[in-house]
Amino acid sequence: MARAAHRARGRRLLLPLLCLLLQAATAVLFAVFVRYGPESDPALWHLGNHSAADNAFYFRYPSFQDVHVMVFVGFGFLMAFLQRYGFSSVAFTFLLAAFSLQWATLVQGFLHSLHGGYIRVGVESMINADFCAGAVLISFGAVLGKTGPAQLLLMALLEVVLFGANEFVLLSVLQVRDAGGSMTIHTFGAYFGLVLSRVLYKPRMEKSKQRQTSVYHSDLFAMIGTIFLWLFWPSFNSAPTTLGDGQHRTALNTYYSLTASTLSTFALSALVGDEGRLDMVHVQNAALAGGVVVGTASEMLLTPFGALAAGFLAGTVSTLGYKFFTPILESKFKIQDTCGVHNLHGMPGILGALLGVLVTALATHDAYGDGLESVFPLIAQGQRSATSQAVYQLGGLLVTLMFASVGAGLGGLLLKLPFLDSPSDSQCFDDQLYWESPPHWHCHLAFQVPGEDEDEAHGPLRTEEPDTQA
Amino acid sequence: MARAAHRARGRRLLLPLLCLLLQAATAVLFAVFVRYGPESDPALWHLGNHSAADNAFYFRYPSFQDVHVMVFVGFGFLMAFLQRYGFSSVAFTFLLAAFSLQWATLVQGFLHSLHGGYIRVGVESMINADFCAGAVLISFGAVLGKTGPAQLLLMALLEVVLFGANEFVLLSVLQVRDAGGSMTIHTFGAYFGLVLSRVLYKPRMEKSKQRQTSVYHSDLFAMIGTIFLWLFWPSFNSAPTTLGDGQHRTALNTYYSLTASTLSTFALSALVGDEGRLDMVHVQNAALAGGVVVGTASEMLLTPFGALAAGFLAGTVSTLGYKFFTPILESKFKIQDTCGVHNLHGMPGILGALLGVLVTALATHDAYGDGLESVFPLIAQGQRSATSQAVYQLGGLLVTLMFASVGAGLGGLLLKLPFLDSPSDSQCFDDQLYWESPPHWHCHLAFQVPGEDEDEAHGPLRTEEPDTQA
Amino acid sequence: MARAAHRARGRRLLLPLLCLLLQAATAVLFAVFVRYGPESDPALWHLGNHSAADNAFYFRYPSFQDVHVMVFVGFGFLMAFLQRYGFSSVAFTFLLAAFSLQWATLVQGFLHSLHGGYIRVGVESMINADFCAGAVLISFGAVLGKTGPAQLLLMALLEVVLFGANEFVLLSVLQVRDAGGSMTIHTFGAYFGLVLSRVLYKPRMEKSKQRQTSVYHSDLFAMIGTIFLWLFWPSFNSAPTTLGDGQHRTALNTYYSLTASTLSTFALSALVGDEGRLDMVHVQNAALAGGVVVGTASEMLLTPFGALAAGFLAGTVSTLGYKFFTPILESKFKIQDTCGVHNLHGMPGILGALLGVLVTALATHDAYGDGLESVFPLIAQGQRSATSQAVYQLGGLLVTLMFASVGAGLGGLLLKLPFLDSPSDSQCFDDQLYWESPPHWHCHLAFQVPGEDEDEAHGPLRTEEPDTQA
Repeated sequence: MARAAHRARGRRLLLPLLCLLLQAATAVLFAVFVRYGPESDPALWHLGNHSAADNAFYFRYPSFQDVHVMVFVGFGFLMAFLQRYGFSSVAFTFLLAAFSLQWATLVQGFLHSLHGGYIRVGVESMINADFCAGAVLISFGAVLGKTGPAQLLLMALLEVVLFGANEFVLLSVLQVRDAGGSMTIHTFGAYFGLVLSRVLYKPRMEKSKQRQTSVYHSDLFAMIGTIFLWLFWPSFNSAPTTLGDGQHRTALNTYYSLTASTLSTFALSALVGDEGRLDMVHVQNAALAGGVVVGTASEMLLTPFGALAAGFLAGTVSTLGYKFFTPILESKFKIQDTCGVHNLHGMPGILGALLGVLVTALATHDAYGDGLESVFPLIAQGQRSATSQAVYQLGGLLVTLMFASVGAGLGGLLLKLPFLDSPSDSQCFDDQLYWESPPHWHCHLAFQVPGEDEDEAHGPLRTEEPDTQA
Repeated sequence: MARAAHRARGRRLLLPLLCLLLQAATAVLFAVFVRYGPESDPALWHLGNHSAADNAFYFRYPSFQDVHVMVFVGFGFLMAFLQRYGFSSVAFTFLLAAFSLQWATLVQGFLHSLHGGYIRVGVESMINADFCAGAVLISFGAVLGKTGPAQLLLMALLEVVLFGANEFVLLSVLQVRDAGGSMTIHTFGAYFGLVLSRVLYKPRMEKSKQRQTSVYHSDLFAMIGTIFLWLFWPSFNSAPTTLGDGQHRTALNTYYSLTASTLSTFALSALVGDEGRLDMVHVQNAALAGGVVVGTASEMLLTPFGALAAGFLAGTVSTLGYKFFTPILESKFKIQDTCGVHNLHGMPGILGALLGVLVTALATHDAYGDGLESVFPLIAQGQRSATSQAVYQLGGLLVTLMFASVGAGLGGLLLKLPFLDSPSDSQCFDDQLYWESPPHWHCHLAFQVPGEDEDEAHGPLRTEEPDTQA
Repeated sequence: MARAAHRARGRRLLLPLLCLLLQAATAVLFAVFVRYGPESDPALWHLGNHSAADNAFYFRYPSFQDVHVMVFVGFGFLMAFLQRYGFSSVAFTFLLAAFSLQWATLVQGFLHSLHGGYIRVGVESMINADFCAGAVLISFGAVLGKTGPAQLLLMALLEVVLFGANEFVLLSVLQVRDAGGSMTIHTFGAYFGLVLSRVLYKPRMEKSKQRQTSVYHSDLFAMIGTIFLWLFWPSFNSAPTTLGDGQHRTALNTYYSLTASTLSTFALSALVGDEGRLDMVHVQNAALAGGVVVGTASEMLLTPFGALAAGFLAGTVSTLGYKFFTPILESKFKIQDTCGVHNLHGMPGILGALLGVLVTALATHDAYGDGLESVFPLIAQGQRSATSQAVYQLGGLLVTLMFASVGAGLGGLLLKLPFLDSPSDSQCFDDQLYWESPPHWHCHLAFQVPGEDEDEAHGPLRTEEPDTQA
């Protein structure tokens, strides 16, 4: 009892202290380093070229909003499929993303855009921070239900730094193209989460298995996430591309790829289901694999047919992954992947990187014309051949896998520290651990017998406690 | 038993084969015919007029996103009101729309925009394809719960072709104005679905009636659809209009019309309800009729007052339709209209076409000034009088009704083919037919007696199986 | 019995008559006074400066859509947390907002933009009307569950007029800056609602208390509202600001402020919760306080650090308000604040006004450069010093509190008129009073015992009435 009370007291202070500490730290760093960029500073604005800044803001802002919706609504509700972990899924998504946005602004600012000692923020820094938050939420999907909020905040603290470092190496050192983040976001986020899940392996999780399922309406909440992700993915992939034909082409390719992954998901789900029945898990997730697989190649000349083919392949691989590979991952490799991020982000992310290698290798001056400069500047300037750029793209994938694995391996050890209050093997997937007034359905909502005449005097609900009725 | 087993085997392969076949066919056609348009092809872009293409993309893309949200989130969740058909409503919407987008890109491309043997895709082709998917989903609403996914895909295959043909006759041959699709989308989609429902009439559907109702939270899911449809309808109607005053005016008119249909829906719903009670079905649907009724006229000089009046009328007709006409449609005309699309899209669509006739007949050079060219080019060029354009508008409505009726009549015969695995009269509105792990509420969520002291040791839920609790 | 029947008959006609009357009145006023503005009138458009009007429309329209989503989806679902009042929360939001948009267009048009006897509508009038609807919905939150739809429509009728008058005094007479409406929207809406709730005090509301709680999925529906509010708040605050750096800066400041209020909400919620448990009410509401608190100051040079600090403070005050102040408000001040609008809009709104005073007082020509003209035109023109503008800002807060209190005090007396059919103290928070086919869960959805083998023949659901199963 004394020990239990002590744990409770520890838990009471752990999350508040961590939130306050992290917020204080980022606030101090903001005070010292963060300043408005030229498009948002009134004094700088009027010195500058109005029209260009105007365009950059107005044309980028709707993209930012779309990415923002996708990250919060999409990931938040997609993870709400668990019957008793909906509060934590949605709310910890919210907490993690809010912290990651601040922290990523700092980390990405230090690495990418420190000008005269200051980080100049604007609509592009908001888009980049949202991208980083997306990667953190992908990792969250792998460890969903098995980690407390304090562990998750520390995960974000570490992952944002590694995300920024990996992104810097890929985009600035290797000069790899990855607009929609097949590598930097999906592959990185998925394998970071999977390695973390391996390190945090819970050997006796069968004690929590009865809660690792959905109920009818939790699956419908998850479909809110799916549909918003599906709808805004063209904006997500195209948000950081060159304004003009590049952004346009990226949105088109992503749109077609998603339609094809949806059809292949339904086909495969019915094919492998009992008596041809479909599985909501596949529809919720694998149908989105088309967005992941064109993350790198969609700004290139993938062609609409290429987008359909890529999406089709991704939906197929992802659905088969959910059906056959996820159980093996748990039983053989001791990786408990709650949301199946390996199927939605891991394998399609790697496929997307390889598709990028292929389409890069096929790039020619003829096909891209004067547009080559904005997609492959180093090829246009004659510094790299298409083949050599393709090799760099492949290198980017390997670097990403290394950053994710090593980083999550070390990070996992940190997250195992006992005072971080990890849920025990029998407490997983349970909102009651973290939330007051835990959820339940009141019995008097459940006793309507359909078809029977309703009692007008007391309304149509018959309850065990008529005195609670009006 | 042998027969049942055979059916199961047939069902297992039917949907996968159909999905794979359709996807393969569209992919081949994409490979042969579809190419990036001038705004998304890097080589063409740099030859072209940057600024114009830039505008076309950036100003159209947010419109596209709004239409996209409306079609998927709006229609998907609006149809989720059935208590045991939410998975199918949302997921088949997703499947149908994903296929329709590809197929409509091809059909509309062949009919409207074949240049040098190629279909040139871009943001306008995406908007047009989404519009066509909208019509397919309206028809889905009429047959919701009474058709399997294979039947629905075949419906979409046929309907997209007829939609494209009808749209071509109206917009290119008759040169009718119909920006928001009162005729091409709503009237066409509704009567196609209603005639289909007539052909597929299920005489003993009382066996499934206990599932053709909502429960509390399914009605709230449906309201997600309603609200997103309501919010984005101004963008939907204005998406294909002329950039400038036309788009602006269309959005304004739609916005006012919707506010008025909302007020008339509440007024009429309470007026015809028992003891003045409101009906969620009316709020979910009839409140949207204001968007349908100005589909044709909102780009014209309808005036804000005209928009209010039109919306008020549409909300009234639609609510009364749900209350009095839908039962007659089923009992007298053998048309089982699950979502009441006749009330939301059919009657308001016809009213919208007639409103378009009226406002067209009143068009004058004085009122439109130099803007006449973009709304009524043939009147501006002196090739048609306002009256003659109005007659053409009326002709457009008749053509639409003919295309929808004849097409759906023939299509219905196709969909009755026995191997398409239509649900029996007693299996309608039931997700269990199509989905694994069918939905249910776990009993241990239901036995909380409110107000009683909660057992701290076991958490607040008392279950029949305490061992499942942590 | 006779009396009860009479009340029912009265109720039957009350809402329909009021809706029809209000709609008829606004329609007549629209017919007489409302005309398309220069950006939406085809004849005026072609006389005007294309490019400027073009920009105003295209750059404002996405802002309008974001505000529109925030008002309807955000407020509508945020209030859906009550277990048995979800229909009313979402649908009355819809009704109130639809009426308020029409009425606000008229009121704001008369007060702000009557040109040549006409109200010229356009995208800016739509944004302003949505803002006004937002204030009405904030007040709705205070009286949620305790007022009938007829009372609510009368509340909106009165509140829109007072909102317009207060807005006119602040923006046009005192020339106060308040882009995101810390004063005009949040403080006004909150205190109007709170004073109204005081006047309508229900002394025996403990009879309805068992319904003034949430259930699991109603809390998740509320989170839909929270997340959409959170996501679109940067657009909300920046929608009416000067195009260019002002809009950009406002969005950035709001974005940072919200991330900080989210972290402080989680910190404080866990700190004051039993055993460190979080409370969904805090996450749903207090996390949004960062958007309210920068409503005035976000267009000014608040700095990113200032935004973080303000958001942190607002989240803290708001969470503590929910925990400690709301109960006192009810027990000591007889103010029953259903949604806690005092914590989300009231206190953070006042803090936001005071923050505006502070940041205004610190304004210098050096810091703003040529941008001073667009943020503080009177200071730029030398008509006011920064200090004097700050004093006017403070005056604006006091005027707002006066308008809200006096207006709601008088309005409350009107709303107490007996024929308005206010719910009795034991009928609060109950959809059954207003909705047909009241909500319930069918029992046959509730009897699945998890883990047991499922009966293949009848599907996995065991029911008391097997004949309802296919």
